[in-house]
Amino acid sequence: MDKALVLLSGGQDSCTCLYWAKKVFSEVEGICFDYGQRHKVELDAARIIAEKASVKLSKIPINSFKALGNNSLTGEAEVSSKLGDNQLPNTFVPGRNLIFLFYAAAFAYEKNIVNLVGGMNQTDYSGYPDCRNNTLLAMELAINLGMDKEFHIHAPLMYKTKKDIWALAHELGCLDVVKEISHSCYNGVRGGCGECQACTLRLKGLRDFEESIKSRRET
Amino acid sequence: MDKALVLLSGGQDSCTCLYWAKKVFSEVEGICFDYGQRHKVELDAARIIAEKASVKLSKIPINSFKALGNNSLTGEAEVSSKLGDNQLPNTFVPGRNLIFLFYAAAFAYEKNIVNLVGGMNQTDYSGYPDCRNNTLLAMELAINLGMDKEFHIHAPLMYKTKKDIWALAHELGCLDVVKEISHSCYNGVRGGCGECQACTLRLKGLRDFEESIKSRRET
Repeated sequence: MDKALVLLSGGQDSCTCLYWAKKVFSEVEGICFDYGQRHKVELDAARIIAEKASVKLSKIPINSFKALGNNSLTGEAEVSSKLGDNQLPNTFVPGRNLIFLFYAAAFAYEKNIVNLVGGMNQTDYSGYPDCRNNTLLAMELAINLGMDKEFHIHAPLMYKTKKDIWALAHELGCLDVVKEISHSCYNGVRGGCGECQACTLRLKGLRDFEESIKSRRET
Repeated sequence: MDKALVLLSGGQDSCTCLYWAKKVFSEVEGICFDYGQRHKVELDAARIIAEKASVKLSKIPINSFKALGNNSLTGEAEVSSKLGDNQLPNTFVPGRNLIFLFYAAAFAYEKNIVNLVGGMNQTDYSGYPDCRNNTLLAMELAINLGMDKEFHIHAPLMYKTKKDIWALAHELGCLDVVKEISHSCYNGVRGGCGECQACTLRLKGLRDFEESIKSRRET
């Protein structure tokens, strides 16, 4: 029962989680989702990260989001960091992380894996309500009742700042992989556009982490 | 806020639910899922039922189930009513109803509909754990936290037997539509193969209902 399935989007958080899971569990697999995202390059990043970590990665196609309504991650609208009428950025796909978790659980079900690991985080996040810990607790309950299994959802980054997440990558020895290969940019610019919300959070965290390392060395 | 979205698979239960919702809510829409099901004819049934009921029906494509593992509803295995190692029939797609509910909620989110109606039922059912009331309560919580909305999941058939559901259709004046147009057979045989679990439950319920009507008339 010491196997885990990591939701590997290819971004900073999930990449760090993969290395965390490799340390905690004896067997690790990854799962990623091809949902028509504008920043599809993250899937290439996920593939390379999994290869480097010697982890099997399965890709689940999801063609449903477009039919559900408009949002800038899968639709035509431009990515914007301004909040919409619902007080959320227009990159919000309602329930996206919930749906990913359900697919991950259904996939894990068939393989008898009960540990699901994801980079959900309610500190330096984009305000998505499906990243919050309470949501995950309710999800765990819904999945466990609905599938008659006892899954555990692990979100080791839940209360970490982006700076802390960079520090964790450093600790886990995967700082270079995260820095050079993981992809966060919502606009799909390899290396980052530097302007979207995902890039801004990532860069600020890295700068803060590097400064803290530097000031530690200086003192 | 008096709008409802009905999960209309095209089967007996969801068809009855559609007519129930039309009585309870002032505005009703339907949603159905094209997930590669072997019994795809149910989607034709759903379309005809929605037309008859003058209800708009949206179809969401789902191409993900095949990649999740094997089951007889979307895979190659033959439909069987025998229980597998997990004590469930091999028509069980883990979390299928959960995923449908999430997609329905995401769809409703964009349209500002908060009432979701489904034919989930824990009495005369196939043993799927995602049809139970506890699962739905947990789902409601997960959806509401994850999407930051207050959805209500209505499952008016939850504690009814199949016989009761036929009686409800009679009461709602939709007995003929349910009987002649709705499709339940897992093998996709129009009119029913008469042998799969869905057919067996449906037919037994109808026979019981018709006998009760007959004996009521005779006394």
